[in-house]
Amino acid sequence: MEISPIGYVKNSVEEDTDFEDIVSEIVVLPEFAEGLYRIEESDELDIIFLFDRSQSYKMMVHPHHDPSQPEVGVFASRSPKRPNFLGLTRVKLLRREGNVLIVKGLDAFDRTPIIDIKPARRRDQTGKNHK
Amino acid sequence: MEISPIGYVKNSVEEDTDFEDIVSEIVVLPEFAEGLYRIEESDELDIIFLFDRSQSYKMMVHPHHDPSQPEVGVFASRSPKRPNFLGLTRVKLLRREGNVLIVKGLDAFDRTPIIDIKPARRRDQTGKNHK
Repeated sequence: MEISPIGYVKNSVEEDTDFEDIVSEIVVLPEFAEGLYRIEESDELDIIFLFDRSQSYKMMVHPHHDPSQPEVGVFASRSPKRPNFLGLTRVKLLRREGNVLIVKGLDAFDRTPIIDIKPARRRDQTGKNHK
Repeated sequence: MEISPIGYVKNSVEEDTDFEDIVSEIVVLPEFAEGLYRIEESDELDIIFLFDRSQSYKMMVHPHHDPSQPEVGVFASRSPKRPNFLGLTRVKLLRREGNVLIVKGLDAFDRTPIIDIKPARRRDQTGKNHK
């Protein structure tokens, strides 16, 4: 199956860091911008993106890239070296400016392709997920 | 970019229902089974799957397929009629039997292709996400 980006990441991060407080922009391509209508009603989003720096995957990995930790299977980890190369992160939506989402906590490098955006939770309710 | 299934869903669900208490099997293809090593240490998993019954997508959708609800953009919804046709659900891992995961709460039909499996949380810790 074919997938293609609906947008891309804009930040200044080019290598691994603590992403928790990093603010990134998600620039949504103009042809998909209409799909953002009323997204501001969600305070958290699930972002699916492509690990485009990964060239191959492994069946077993050391957690947190730490060779002193015993290996686990790739599906028991969130390693970028995984089949299909998809990353997933729940981020805070700070605000929207047209076709650009300003989010906090996205652990993706500058220019990372964005594959999907889903609401985790509506602003008007808390503690419960909504579909 | 090309993606391809790492497994598929086995349950008896062929149409929309309340999936919360539905128990499903995720059958992982033999060539990816090694990647499940130590996945039992997680009690919740994030499952990325393909909305393979969707033929097209829309930029605007009615939440919960309910025409009485005002439309939102597709990225402000979790509608299956979305670009790239990827679904995402957090499920409870009940147990593993070899290359088969028995999970609760997966809102996917029988034979749905599975694209990725990620741990949401380790069993030995609670309340905090681990990567």
